[in-house]
Amino acid sequence: MPHYADSLASLVREHKSPLVVGIDPRWDQLPDSLRQGDSLADRAEAYRRFSIGVIEAVAGVVPAVKPQAAFFEELGPAGMAALGDVIARARGNRLQVILDGKRNDIGSTAEAYARGMLGEASPWGADSVTVSPYLGDDSLAPFVTTAIERDAGLYVLVKTSNPGGALWQDKLIDGKPLYRHVGEHVEHLAEKTAGECGYGLVGAVVGATYPEQLSELRQAMPHTWFLVPGFGAQGGAAADVAGAFDASGLGAVVNSSRGVIFAYNRPEYAQFGQDRWQDAVQQAARDATAQLCDATPAGAL
Amino acid sequence: MPHYADSLASLVREHKSPLVVGIDPRWDQLPDSLRQGDSLADRAEAYRRFSIGVIEAVAGVVPAVKPQAAFFEELGPAGMAALGDVIARARGNRLQVILDGKRNDIGSTAEAYARGMLGEASPWGADSVTVSPYLGDDSLAPFVTTAIERDAGLYVLVKTSNPGGALWQDKLIDGKPLYRHVGEHVEHLAEKTAGECGYGLVGAVVGATYPEQLSELRQAMPHTWFLVPGFGAQGGAAADVAGAFDASGLGAVVNSSRGVIFAYNRPEYAQFGQDRWQDAVQQAARDATAQLCDATPAGAL
Repeated sequence: MPHYADSLASLVREHKSPLVVGIDPRWDQLPDSLRQGDSLADRAEAYRRFSIGVIEAVAGVVPAVKPQAAFFEELGPAGMAALGDVIARARGNRLQVILDGKRNDIGSTAEAYARGMLGEASPWGADSVTVSPYLGDDSLAPFVTTAIERDAGLYVLVKTSNPGGALWQDKLIDGKPLYRHVGEHVEHLAEKTAGECGYGLVGAVVGATYPEQLSELRQAMPHTWFLVPGFGAQGGAAADVAGAFDASGLGAVVNSSRGVIFAYNRPEYAQFGQDRWQDAVQQAARDATAQLCDATPAGAL
Repeated sequence: MPHYADSLASLVREHKSPLVVGIDPRWDQLPDSLRQGDSLADRAEAYRRFSIGVIEAVAGVVPAVKPQAAFFEELGPAGMAALGDVIARARGNRLQVILDGKRNDIGSTAEAYARGMLGEASPWGADSVTVSPYLGDDSLAPFVTTAIERDAGLYVLVKTSNPGGALWQDKLIDGKPLYRHVGEHVEHLAEKTAGECGYGLVGAVVGATYPEQLSELRQAMPHTWFLVPGFGAQGGAAADVAGAFDASGLGAVVNSSRGVIFAYNRPEYAQFGQDRWQDAVQQAARDATAQLCDATPAGAL
């Protein structure tokens, strides 16, 4: 299998799109046709059908999807079974799967998460996962080891898109904010695991809502692929994420969830109606891709 | 329903035990009689039977159990279904359930985790959960709101038991380590949600492996109930956790996982043999309780 970052770079180039579609199903926003019954099992089945519908709509248009574990976990074991099906279907459609669970723990417990989630042979089968750094370097190490073994990837939270993220992430330590210290450690891991494209297996989550910090971190972390949330519904514009890309338009994928998957509820896509909700999703993915390509260096993608 | 911390205090007093038994099933250490087959479904069924066996052995002896989500998640959807059964069985045996998932996310995604996990009426049905703080105050707020609504509890990672935890947690910010800043925020949330026992719904994870910091934080966080990992297999002795308790022996529960649940593999409990592995678990829980009671202020429990 090829190196994780090389595969991702290749898919971004093939589709000429740095867009990741976030799969965040929410009951109240699903198309009416999918909302049958109201038990946990009914809801889980609706999430499964909706998510697979999204996958079919964006396959061939974008390089990756990012299922949000929380929304499936909210439905208990039935939701988690649906999540497993959704990941398998995405992989079957040549979409990279970034499983967004922000997991972590210490030692052998972190190993259990990594072994369970990373790689085609694992029970969940994700290509990459998001990881929280508060527990320190020895909590990240088992994820790195497993990612290397399985040609999988990680995205460590560095600078998150929410306003409250600043509370501790921006606190100065020896004259530099905490997120820069975490970023330096991540860059070190990325450099050690770099593939042919120059990027490592270890990436970073850096929010679109802080454009200055995004550019600053791009400079400081040349081997680190960024996963950029906060574009679209969270308020980040395409121009805000321009600093995340390198000169060839690589080095970052940008997530949009609600703006794409619930496009049929947006006035701009009203012409599709509920019956053609998948067409609205596909059109929104194409439109977001075009916006992001405009934000990359001219003609890079 | 009574306030979370009041319920916990009452169970600690009733059983005269501040011990939490960590349910961390590991395939290689299960009794031979439970290791039938080798598929994910077989393993999940073995984890389910083993965990329920542990629950039956320690019910009436300790106030709480702490299932570690990672080990169940490692087995995919089948493992998560087993986790759901294990939580339900623990509650049915009057054991408080601390679901150890160290989850967190932003805004409505954090709400989804909180709604899914906290309280009897939720799909997972845990009494409390562990939460990671890197995403800041607005990521903790949805958990606090849900915990208040459902008389449930939280434990926020403050000072973890692993050596690498020091990498960022011990970094000085305005002359104080990061963990003290996180601790101050948690104490503020605990004070605002205090029950009759004086402790809040919001607690803190503080490792047994740093006795000095444990005593320092006990002084600084008088309304915060501590969940103390690192006792037993991780190297913390009972004397090391003495500083976690208040004068009446309350304010902390101390976790032991491997030392109790795999007691039948320890030389001290060899007399039970594999056939009586549950008796070994119960005896180890009684012995760990006695050690911890010796560490609380004289006669407090």
